[in-house]
Amino acid sequence: MSSVRKVEEDRDGSVSLEVLRMKMAEFSKQRNWERFHSPRNLLLALVGEVGELSEIFQWKGEVPKGLPEWEEDEKKHLGEELSDVLLYLVRLSDICGIDLSKAALRKLELNAIKYPLHKSTDNNN
Amino acid sequence: MSSVRKVEEDRDGSVSLEVLRMKMAEFSKQRNWERFHSPRNLLLALVGEVGELSEIFQWKGEVPKGLPEWEEDEKKHLGEELSDVLLYLVRLSDICGIDLSKAALRKLELNAIKYPLHKSTDNNN
Amino acid sequence: MSSVRKVEEDRDGSVSLEVLRMKMAEFSKQRNWERFHSPRNLLLALVGEVGELSEIFQWKGEVPKGLPEWEEDEKKHLGEELSDVLLYLVRLSDICGIDLSKAALRKLELNAIKYPLHKSTDNNN
Amino acid sequence: MSSVRKVEEDRDGSVSLEVLRMKMAEFSKQRNWERFHSPRNLLLALVGEVGELSEIFQWKGEVPKGLPEWEEDEKKHLGEELSDVLLYLVRLSDICGIDLSKAALRKLELNAIKYPLHKSTDNNN
Repeated sequence: MSSVRKVEEDRDGSVSLEVLRMKMAEFSKQRNWERFHSPRNLLLALVGEVGELSEIFQWKGEVPKGLPEWEEDEKKHLGEELSDVLLYLVRLSDICGIDLSKAALRKLELNAIKYPLHKSTDNNN
Repeated sequence: MSSVRKVEEDRDGSVSLEVLRMKMAEFSKQRNWERFHSPRNLLLALVGEVGELSEIFQWKGEVPKGLPEWEEDEKKHLGEELSDVLLYLVRLSDICGIDLSKAALRKLELNAIKYPLHKSTDNNN
Repeated sequence: MSSVRKVEEDRDGSVSLEVLRMKMAEFSKQRNWERFHSPRNLLLALVGEVGELSEIFQWKGEVPKGLPEWEEDEKKHLGEELSDVLLYLVRLSDICGIDLSKAALRKLELNAIKYPLHKSTDNNN
Repeated sequence: MSSVRKVEEDRDGSVSLEVLRMKMAEFSKQRNWERFHSPRNLLLALVGEVGELSEIFQWKGEVPKGLPEWEEDEKKHLGEELSDVLLYLVRLSDICGIDLSKAALRKLELNAIKYPLHKSTDNNN
């Protein structure tokens, strides 16, 4: 494993939001794209990518979990569109001055309060 | 720092996509929501959250980076909507069998190839 | 039938895009909302309404044509969200100086050229 | 003016929603596309078109009413994307059994109740 890989990957083998944030910031700076990256420009770019993601699913009817019938190329394309949404989301958060990691962990806590577990019901059913 | 915090946070203090994936999976399982989490259900839920995110920005005209004029409550609300998009995106990827970390790092590499740096041009202009 | 109804309705009993355009323009002017109705503000408002439309369908799995199982209230709500998308679309077109009637008829013609009919094939299969 | 034109156009020179509905239904039937036109397929197609509409505006910053700086080709492209959203919206409504004309006129009435005019205030300011 190269040292670059080590920096990118978390101890669980996945990437952290902070790594993605830094990479997007560096990528934009190197290309002199910072002037385009206003909050609403990025938001509309995000909406554009959500549109491309939707196009993948639009004529398929319901599809089962794991997409067992999909060709490898189609899944690769899906991974690209999911990534585009993620990368613009990370960049939008950064440009808005929002710590997306903190916000996401806090939202998970709020969701747990909003939808509490009812253990007894679960046990009985 | 609690041990829970330690598990959640990456060495850079941010959260990893894998932690979010696991948390969403556990949350859904505990509430018996897995039956609702088909790919297209999650995709439409994602679109719904992108709509809520857009509503925050809809009547504001252009807003500067860092949102200096926004109230603390409005920024908190923004963090929640950004998180909702992120959490459904992570869950959608998981249910589709897509490794979002790998896909995002690969997409960054593809973007670097698609938009190469022209150092000489940058220096001259 | 009242005379108001007569003005609103086309000879086929439906409403014309021009009537909707005029109504939206008048509504906005009366409320001094024109200052908010910039192209990108209206576009983001449209995205917000598409999000609300998606929320209606998000946890339902596939639903059959005509929505036979839906409650009357749910269909009424659906009609409202479809209308919100339409009204912002009409307003956005107007503010952009686009004649949506002409554009839509032209797009139908372009679609007919892009996807030509193959009569013989249809007859044989 | 040809007789086809006469049928398409309302007395105000614009097109009615009913004409668009019939044209979309006929177009789909002739191409045997009805099997693809389920409510959620059409909804995702609509989201895809909203994405394409957003892409036109994404890197532009705020743009003034009437789009005075835009090239003719760009405005033509905009008209096409606005139309795509409209046509899928009309088709989605039809497939869901919603009378979009009635729903839109009703929504305008609801909006007028929700946002009443305060004449005296308007006169004083």
